[in-house]
Amino acid sequence: MKSDERLERYAELVVRVGVNLAPGQLLELTAFPEHVPLVRAIARAGYRNGARYVDVRYSDPHVRRAMIEHAADDVLSWSPPWLLRRMEDSGREQSGTVFITGEAEPELLAGLDGERVARAQPRELRELGLKIMNEAANNWTVVAYPNEGWARTVFGEPDVERLWEAVAHAVRLDELDPVAAWEAHLSRLEHRGEQLDDLGIDALRFRGPGTDLTVGLLAQSIWEGGWDVTSWGRQHAANVPTEEVFTTPDLRRTEGTVRSTQPLALQGTVVRDLELRFEAGRVVDVRASTGAEVIQGAIAVDEGAAYLGEVAIVDANSRVGETGLTFFNTLFDENAACHVALGAAYEVCVRDGRGHSPEEKRRRGINTSIVHMDFMIGGPEVEVDALTNDGSAVPLLRKNEWQLA
Amino acid sequence: MKSDERLERYAELVVRVGVNLAPGQLLELTAFPEHVPLVRAIARAGYRNGARYVDVRYSDPHVRRAMIEHAADDVLSWSPPWLLRRMEDSGREQSGTVFITGEAEPELLAGLDGERVARAQPRELRELGLKIMNEAANNWTVVAYPNEGWARTVFGEPDVERLWEAVAHAVRLDELDPVAAWEAHLSRLEHRGEQLDDLGIDALRFRGPGTDLTVGLLAQSIWEGGWDVTSWGRQHAANVPTEEVFTTPDLRRTEGTVRSTQPLALQGTVVRDLELRFEAGRVVDVRASTGAEVIQGAIAVDEGAAYLGEVAIVDANSRVGETGLTFFNTLFDENAACHVALGAAYEVCVRDGRGHSPEEKRRRGINTSIVHMDFMIGGPEVEVDALTNDGSAVPLLRKNEWQLA
Repeated sequence: MKSDERLERYAELVVRVGVNLAPGQLLELTAFPEHVPLVRAIARAGYRNGARYVDVRYSDPHVRRAMIEHAADDVLSWSPPWLLRRMEDSGREQSGTVFITGEAEPELLAGLDGERVARAQPRELRELGLKIMNEAANNWTVVAYPNEGWARTVFGEPDVERLWEAVAHAVRLDELDPVAAWEAHLSRLEHRGEQLDDLGIDALRFRGPGTDLTVGLLAQSIWEGGWDVTSWGRQHAANVPTEEVFTTPDLRRTEGTVRSTQPLALQGTVVRDLELRFEAGRVVDVRASTGAEVIQGAIAVDEGAAYLGEVAIVDANSRVGETGLTFFNTLFDENAACHVALGAAYEVCVRDGRGHSPEEKRRRGINTSIVHMDFMIGGPEVEVDALTNDGSAVPLLRKNEWQLA
Repeated sequence: MKSDERLERYAELVVRVGVNLAPGQLLELTAFPEHVPLVRAIARAGYRNGARYVDVRYSDPHVRRAMIEHAADDVLSWSPPWLLRRMEDSGREQSGTVFITGEAEPELLAGLDGERVARAQPRELRELGLKIMNEAANNWTVVAYPNEGWARTVFGEPDVERLWEAVAHAVRLDELDPVAAWEAHLSRLEHRGEQLDDLGIDALRFRGPGTDLTVGLLAQSIWEGGWDVTSWGRQHAANVPTEEVFTTPDLRRTEGTVRSTQPLALQGTVVRDLELRFEAGRVVDVRASTGAEVIQGAIAVDEGAAYLGEVAIVDANSRVGETGLTFFNTLFDENAACHVALGAAYEVCVRDGRGHSPEEKRRRGINTSIVHMDFMIGGPEVEVDALTNDGSAVPLLRKNEWQLA
């Protein structure tokens, strides 16, 4: 496949499966400058598929770096009003929305004051974004664009073609009919979510080197996976790729220690050898060989940031896992391994979970935060069990193989 | 000079002379994706010079091209509300503002329907932008970034270094102390404006190959050049480079024919061999070997677009002219030669010209439009005379040499 043709196919997949754009919709893209070729291809694909208008915002990590280095303390968490307006409009207009990831310099912020790095989050914008996401106003998707810097991070050399091949496999672009392949794949994930719902799970237990973690669920927890659906009934695939089934835990009921099985690439910081200890749901100890300061800063951003908001199961069938790569990109790495996330929970994963106040949500054990930070805890050496309501322990993963029939 | 050092010096010049940033100001940048290195350098220079926050918007010409090709008719002139909000805030907050030019593909829109190209202007945004400019709310500047595509357009090969050297000379970056050189240069231009004001000019006459054009001025016309000043008293240099003195003509009193002496690069279209004929101020005939459709479309955008809003004098002392290059970039080409502009007039160039309604402005002979399209009409073969109120003809330029003592 020629690279131009591959790019156009990818853009079609993003628009038709990721966003599943409805004719006449606004299509909004947020990307880094290094994503220009994909942005342009998605803009063309958007108009071909009936977009009314394609609106692009490029966010520049180097400009953000300059802000973290130099701006006054109160500016770090400031949200430009026009970006709030863009997001408000996006919710009200129920736009199709694409976020492109794939950082050219995943360690751009290494060496800066980690506490300032952690606080550099436009707070109002994050809150509004999470609110709109929980309202399911948008058919949104997160995708990635292979670029030189990212390839250098993964392979130690700028072998973009090799990265493209891995990404194309992970997102099923190597299928004859990627759209049909996605439909079949998402149905399989939906089935898996139903299997887990049927088990009646009280808690999950993860055991492996450095890990003995119990994550208590809510009686109302629902497993999600496969298609996402907007409040107005439009299917979309919020992550391209996606290989996970996930739910919202009880924020009060995580106990034990966990060792991350993959480095974690945040915006400009790579956290390595992360180890956390939880008591009564709360992180009480943080260790890491790089980036510990940024994790410490992030869990201090608000009350919810020190508690879990998501737990997800990924098995060896993952196309991302099949590549055998560490991508230093959460969209990919979280789809290669079981993971948990500190911070905001998904309301869609809780029966009657929508539309409550933050206080009411916390009272019910549903986490709220402006942070949502996934990190990988699964792998071939980590056993995953479901501790069910009837008191039994049901194996879910052994050597990363799915154990349910 | 190493290229990194040159870029940093350039960014300092933009912030300290072009914008003349006041400590604590917001600094807003608008650029194309190909301008990333300069954007980042200006962001750093902005914070070094006391910016409270640096806000960047990248506008992507290829996304605009896709819109012109595919979007519905009414979308062509639509202004996204969040961009209006950004501009409103910019006026209210009196931000420092940088626009970066230097198109990588000046003929990107060649081959598209010229009438749609001409109509693809976000109307509300243009109107708001011109209103804020006339209110002199911002210390703003337009600068350019040498890039491969632009160099290819100028030289037929991507010799960026050669383009950088030309740009550096034109913007006085090759001076030991560019800031001091700019101060001296802008004082000279201010003096020249005073000389022209003292003449008592009723009209300008341009005569050369294909050109015999008389541009009548207003009794209230004022010549500007050198420093610009905001409504709150901040000096800035709205164009880097600038070599012109300019004023607002009487929109009703342009007569004759004019042949453009340089190709004109609009956004994505290059107009070559432009010839216009004016009667009672209005364009009544348009000819061009390329881009005629886009000019025809532009002068049909609104009533004022077919009348002049600016006339400017540039002589052989121009540093841009000294390079001997055609830049295919209006910021540079208009500063190498006398020029006129169709469309919006500058209120600052008219005594008591500020704050009138569009109707009142037109009644007074001051043009209003969402268009402001400069094109070059001067050169060594074009003689320029001032026809003064006392009935004499005073030579201003001969062989591009300034004739006033």
